[in-house]
Amino acid sequence: MRVSDGLILAVPKGRLLTQLLPLMARVGIEPELDFHNEKTRRLSFKTNMEGLTLIRVRSFDVATFVAFGGAHLGVTGHDTLLEFDYPEVYAPLDLRIGRCRLSLAEPVELAAKDDPLRWSHVRIATKYPQATRRYFATRGVHAECVKLSGAVELAPSLGLCQRIVDLVESGQTLKENGLVEVELIADITARLIVNRAAWKTQSAELDVLVDRFQSVINGAKT
Amino acid sequence: MRVSDGLILAVPKGRLLTQLLPLMARVGIEPELDFHNEKTRRLSFKTNMEGLTLIRVRSFDVATFVAFGGAHLGVTGHDTLLEFDYPEVYAPLDLRIGRCRLSLAEPVELAAKDDPLRWSHVRIATKYPQATRRYFATRGVHAECVKLSGAVELAPSLGLCQRIVDLVESGQTLKENGLVEVELIADITARLIVNRAAWKTQSAELDVLVDRFQSVINGAKT
Repeated sequence: MRVSDGLILAVPKGRLLTQLLPLMARVGIEPELDFHNEKTRRLSFKTNMEGLTLIRVRSFDVATFVAFGGAHLGVTGHDTLLEFDYPEVYAPLDLRIGRCRLSLAEPVELAAKDDPLRWSHVRIATKYPQATRRYFATRGVHAECVKLSGAVELAPSLGLCQRIVDLVESGQTLKENGLVEVELIADITARLIVNRAAWKTQSAELDVLVDRFQSVINGAKT
Repeated sequence: MRVSDGLILAVPKGRLLTQLLPLMARVGIEPELDFHNEKTRRLSFKTNMEGLTLIRVRSFDVATFVAFGGAHLGVTGHDTLLEFDYPEVYAPLDLRIGRCRLSLAEPVELAAKDDPLRWSHVRIATKYPQATRRYFATRGVHAECVKLSGAVELAPSLGLCQRIVDLVESGQTLKENGLVEVELIADITARLIVNRAAWKTQSAELDVLVDRFQSVINGAKT
């Protein structure tokens, strides 16, 4: 397939990428070899599809690049979309990879006597302050958030915040830090996202790509 | 030296750490061996000083952990302090490592005809939206910032934002992306930072550590 006008697809660094690459291969997208070179400082890569360029950025930045038109489409977790809530981002497709959940967790000993339904104010360390505030506001709870960009699970034991909101996959990291989930905020999977303006101006090319992803997700032959 | 009550020192992941470790060694702080194991998922490490624990987190999170009392002291770049401007963080010491600058850059062809002194409104992609807005506000310029967590140098060529504010060391990354510095916002070095409340309640122990760093910086024998 040739993407005549040139499309930019933003993909996320990290764990999600290892699940995404096989899916992209089934869609027919193969990045150039240097993409797999762990030492490269490059951020932008060609693919086997003429006119389709990949950029590899952090998951949060995938949403921002797509929202502001720096990329036409991208793959990022539903957690990112919840956090930013960009009106310019359209998320047509659940890719059914990167499955995890956004949960509130706290120390085991606190959870034994705590009742989230009785909170009116709560202090939370998280990478997702906006999503967390919004979620608790619907229940009338004021969530005062301390924004961290990582190492969130350290916050309770170091006395920064008793409670955290974070992505949970197996629960192993929580367990190792003496924490337990007390409330599920959202089930998370990766989504294919598209810039709304591009969706109008380059609909033919974007449609073809989105349809191919859709067919692969549905298990149909492409 | 024994740190009787227990102190947490937050150190930043990444490039700055390679300059920091020799300096810490001269201060007399040696992390446990597992700290150097690149595959470890641990975030917290013992040291040769009884009672002194290291946590290794992102540079931005060093400031947050120290500000909220999750760590007693830390090492982070002046850029981080400019961005967060935490009143709870005291920065007594310039460590004279991690030297770089926070600069505004734009494409070479734009710079040829652009005059920053004539701006009234400017759109900027950056990891430092608060520091950028504050800097330009003092000149009466409204800076509308698009927050990215990395890959900032990609923003101009992808049409996200013509101008960026980012850390510049050698200038090589800018050059590779067809960008040129047009304004210096701040000279940056790493700072030793201390939580103000801890500085009062555990002043004896913190004083000893800060003095040791000071002596090493001054080139005196310790």
